[in-house]
Amino acid sequence: MTLTVYLAGEIHSPWREYFKKQANEHNLPLIFTGPMEDHDRSDQIGEEILGEQPNKVLKDETASSINNLRTQILLSKSDVVIAYFGEKYKQWNSAMDAATAITLNKPVILIRDEKLHHPLKELANKAQLVVETPEQALQALTYVFE
Amino acid sequence: MTLTVYLAGEIHSPWREYFKKQANEHNLPLIFTGPMEDHDRSDQIGEEILGEQPNKVLKDETASSINNLRTQILLSKSDVVIAYFGEKYKQWNSAMDAATAITLNKPVILIRDEKLHHPLKELANKAQLVVETPEQALQALTYVFE
Amino acid sequence: MTLTVYLAGEIHSPWREYFKKQANEHNLPLIFTGPMEDHDRSDQIGEEILGEQPNKVLKDETASSINNLRTQILLSKSDVVIAYFGEKYKQWNSAMDAATAITLNKPVILIRDEKLHHPLKELANKAQLVVETPEQALQALTYVFE
Amino acid sequence: MTLTVYLAGEIHSPWREYFKKQANEHNLPLIFTGPMEDHDRSDQIGEEILGEQPNKVLKDETASSINNLRTQILLSKSDVVIAYFGEKYKQWNSAMDAATAITLNKPVILIRDEKLHHPLKELANKAQLVVETPEQALQALTYVFE
Amino acid sequence: MTLTVYLAGEIHSPWREYFKKQANEHNLPLIFTGPMEDHDRSDQIGEEILGEQPNKVLKDETASSINNLRTQILLSKSDVVIAYFGEKYKQWNSAMDAATAITLNKPVILIRDEKLHHPLKELANKAQLVVETPEQALQALTYVFE
Amino acid sequence: MTLTVYLAGEIHSPWREYFKKQANEHNLPLIFTGPMEDHDRSDQIGEEILGEQPNKVLKDETASSINNLRTQILLSKSDVVIAYFGEKYKQWNSAMDAATAITLNKPVILIRDEKLHHPLKELANKAQLVVETPEQALQALTYVFE
Amino acid sequence: MTLTVYLAGEIHSPWREYFKKQANEHNLPLIFTGPMEDHDRSDQIGEEILGEQPNKVLKDETASSINNLRTQILLSKSDVVIAYFGEKYKQWNSAMDAATAITLNKPVILIRDEKLHHPLKELANKAQLVVETPEQALQALTYVFE
Amino acid sequence: MTLTVYLAGEIHSPWREYFKKQANEHNLPLIFTGPMEDHDRSDQIGEEILGEQPNKVLKDETASSINNLRTQILLSKSDVVIAYFGEKYKQWNSAMDAATAITLNKPVILIRDEKLHHPLKELANKAQLVVETPEQALQALTYVFE
Repeated sequence: MTLTVYLAGEIHSPWREYFKKQANEHNLPLIFTGPMEDHDRSDQIGEEILGEQPNKVLKDETASSINNLRTQILLSKSDVVIAYFGEKYKQWNSAMDAATAITLNKPVILIRDEKLHHPLKELANKAQLVVETPEQALQALTYVFE
Repeated sequence: MTLTVYLAGEIHSPWREYFKKQANEHNLPLIFTGPMEDHDRSDQIGEEILGEQPNKVLKDETASSINNLRTQILLSKSDVVIAYFGEKYKQWNSAMDAATAITLNKPVILIRDEKLHHPLKELANKAQLVVETPEQALQALTYVFE
Repeated sequence: MTLTVYLAGEIHSPWREYFKKQANEHNLPLIFTGPMEDHDRSDQIGEEILGEQPNKVLKDETASSINNLRTQILLSKSDVVIAYFGEKYKQWNSAMDAATAITLNKPVILIRDEKLHHPLKELANKAQLVVETPEQALQALTYVFE
Repeated sequence: MTLTVYLAGEIHSPWREYFKKQANEHNLPLIFTGPMEDHDRSDQIGEEILGEQPNKVLKDETASSINNLRTQILLSKSDVVIAYFGEKYKQWNSAMDAATAITLNKPVILIRDEKLHHPLKELANKAQLVVETPEQALQALTYVFE
Repeated sequence: MTLTVYLAGEIHSPWREYFKKQANEHNLPLIFTGPMEDHDRSDQIGEEILGEQPNKVLKDETASSINNLRTQILLSKSDVVIAYFGEKYKQWNSAMDAATAITLNKPVILIRDEKLHHPLKELANKAQLVVETPEQALQALTYVFE
Repeated sequence: MTLTVYLAGEIHSPWREYFKKQANEHNLPLIFTGPMEDHDRSDQIGEEILGEQPNKVLKDETASSINNLRTQILLSKSDVVIAYFGEKYKQWNSAMDAATAITLNKPVILIRDEKLHHPLKELANKAQLVVETPEQALQALTYVFE
Repeated sequence: MTLTVYLAGEIHSPWREYFKKQANEHNLPLIFTGPMEDHDRSDQIGEEILGEQPNKVLKDETASSINNLRTQILLSKSDVVIAYFGEKYKQWNSAMDAATAITLNKPVILIRDEKLHHPLKELANKAQLVVETPEQALQALTYVFE
Repeated sequence: MTLTVYLAGEIHSPWREYFKKQANEHNLPLIFTGPMEDHDRSDQIGEEILGEQPNKVLKDETASSINNLRTQILLSKSDVVIAYFGEKYKQWNSAMDAATAITLNKPVILIRDEKLHHPLKELANKAQLVVETPEQALQALTYVFE
């Protein structure tokens, strides 16, 4: 039994590498997907495909329509969603991805530093599991196969 | 035909009053619900009902389990969701409410200042309508009855 | 038992009046809803609420986001959908409304002149009933209450 | 991860070949399905299997029951739907396929020349992405795998 | 709390009267709906609304499209379905109505003489309750309000 | 806005009276439903309606088919489910009712003495709120209307 | 792309062999499942596994609980359902299987002799395709792969 | 066709071994999953991953959030659920797993000694099949492949 894991959230630190490396080293039957991790490219993808837009809001709208296409496809193929909330940016798209997965009855693991708990409290309450580090999230995934 | 409208999002400005007043003045068949608007009370409600908790994270967890109970009940009774994103706070619960409603196939109207568009772009792309002011959201609701 | 009927399709002829008048005269417990019937207004509503747009496609996009908000709300409240296909225009929105209702397991009655059957054949095959006139659709609705 | 893509819409131009060729050349893990592309055969299939029918409407009805069987099976197996709207014909079946996919929460990419935007505006607003050429649609699909 | 009860099945005996009379006498908050009980009319309704058809199968097809429209509307409004299987006819439509309700997660009570149990055994196993008389079905409904 | 509350669980103490009395005294717009509270009657109802059964398992089977009919109807009409776990009996039906409601996306409040927490821990983790007394559950419901 | 086809209905003639043989000869990527075809065994399976029962109704009930387990598992794995109605027996289980599949949005092909059309008319109207012979059903399946 | 079977319930006897051994010996295409069978480890897993907790209820809460993560993932991948109820413990989590599977329309087989029938009667009535031994459950699964 192979599980497909969508790694949502922060794209400005290499936390996804930890999962891929560990799964590889321990032969865990896990396939990882996630958002475009190159922030610039994810902001430019709309104009790259659809050409220059009249203003910044529309540039954003075209980019997000393509980023959401990607997310919708990959989220629907996933068995588990792990969402990492960091310090930077507003991360409303991460909150959206987590809430969408929860509503679709997909199990969600939140990773966040305890400092971020207060603003995340409602989402944390809805998630199936809340941890502080990728190591803990991987331990939980490993436990599923024991 | 009466519509029930859940007013999600910012609780630090009196924007909900505008809707209630206008609907009343123009006899629009709208019933409004929403989150607890007293921020302190929404933070204390867990300990108020369940007693003192061992630490801040657990105080938050009890509060959010009751705030989410409220949201789950009222969101499931709503025909439309309006979510207002302001400047303050992380508002991950607002993003969660909007994404939950969208996934449940409930129509969502986002209100946000254009300045906030970039971080909101993925959620805006999923919402049925994005406006900048409560006045515009009310105009759209009024149009449904014309 | 009251039924709410969404009258989708052609807005350039007064066919909806027939339903409202007949239901009134025969005391049928039917509530009718439908799209904005003033074509110009439905094309302008985006710019009316959101202000002037950079080009025609964007003017259309804002208008359709508000027209679809209206349709999503009213369709979700309906027990039956009647869709009238006429000679004019491409009517892709009517086909969308009918297919959406069918997929949501709402019963759909198509009204179309036999001349239009060939291009409508796949949608007709999915609809619960296909008739040629509003009179026939009303007869079918009346039969539900006999 | 392999994606199954249903290519709905216009059958009078060889646009589907582009996708198959490109996916093959670039080793994209895509499987393509779609409607019967031989227009005559799709019109005759009812009488071919069920024998001569009493009139044209019934000939159409038998053909569409078999074409819809095909579409229902293949659409339900698909991860993404791409719908191409061209100049010819009424294409209500293409609008039906796209709306069905959207309602089933399958991501839809519309391809249409900008000239067709006005009549397609409501469907375009519901689609996850709107582009003008098969090349752009393929770029978006490629981006999902980057 | 009022319950709407769809009375499916046999139309050649006056068993529905029993329910209506008892509910009335005992002030049970029950609303009853059901199929057209005039067998001839239910067979003719297709040609009555749509005109003469080329052959008997098509006459049947038009009638059943209208009878199913009625059933789809009324079944979707019901809280409970009671299905009565008698000796006469094949009653495949009754089996269809009961199975549809079960699949939609609506509670179903089957009424049948014990003699009919063998051929009904799979459907009986899926129903929430199997009784032999309308009196027993009414007793069960009454128990819901105690 | 009126809420319908299904009061699942223990039937050997008068805890439901507290809810009804308080709601009445404070004019809370709450309608309460629940299982048959007379234990003997709920055990006998199968034989009462369907006659004597060949053995105890079958007596139980007929009773539970009628008790489940009641629960299925009332649960499907409810907006919130409150489940009270006491010391007595195995209460597997209470666990079933709570889990069914959770899976149907209905908000569930568990009431249980802290002593019972260990065996209830998985169900408590799935419930939206866990409290120790009916008073606390009522406080939470009251908060929804503030 | 492989399709799994559940062959519901008549078990007293070797019509399923035709499908298996043809699919094999023409290398169609079809996997066939279906009910227990040995009528006696399907009637005895309850007592075979659960031991002798107190009476015939209970013998039937145990058998049908196991036959329905089989059907529920195999139907949920199927992409298409073909249901054959013959002359013999009441076939209410076949009608149940077909209606269940239709309600679950699985495409259904009915096979029946025209003589049986009148009693089957409501189910025929709900099925995606109605044919008279297994050959025609196979032709339709073959068309899906063309 | 391979079936994935989730083996819920009692973890204090080696009943799962029987299934694995028999399936292996008879080459049945069955994959088995289930809960953590080491009771101590399932109680400690919360603190093992998340560190020491302030009290026993919170230790339980962290453990159950991880056990439920495991169950949610494995249950959603399963085609059939077998739930074994033994004499020991309250087994509310087993009742929850069975009720969750039933509500998700997954077929459930209950195994219980007849002595336990009375408290299990409502859950037994909802399950697709009730047996007394693992041998009987395996016979039923084997029958699906005959």
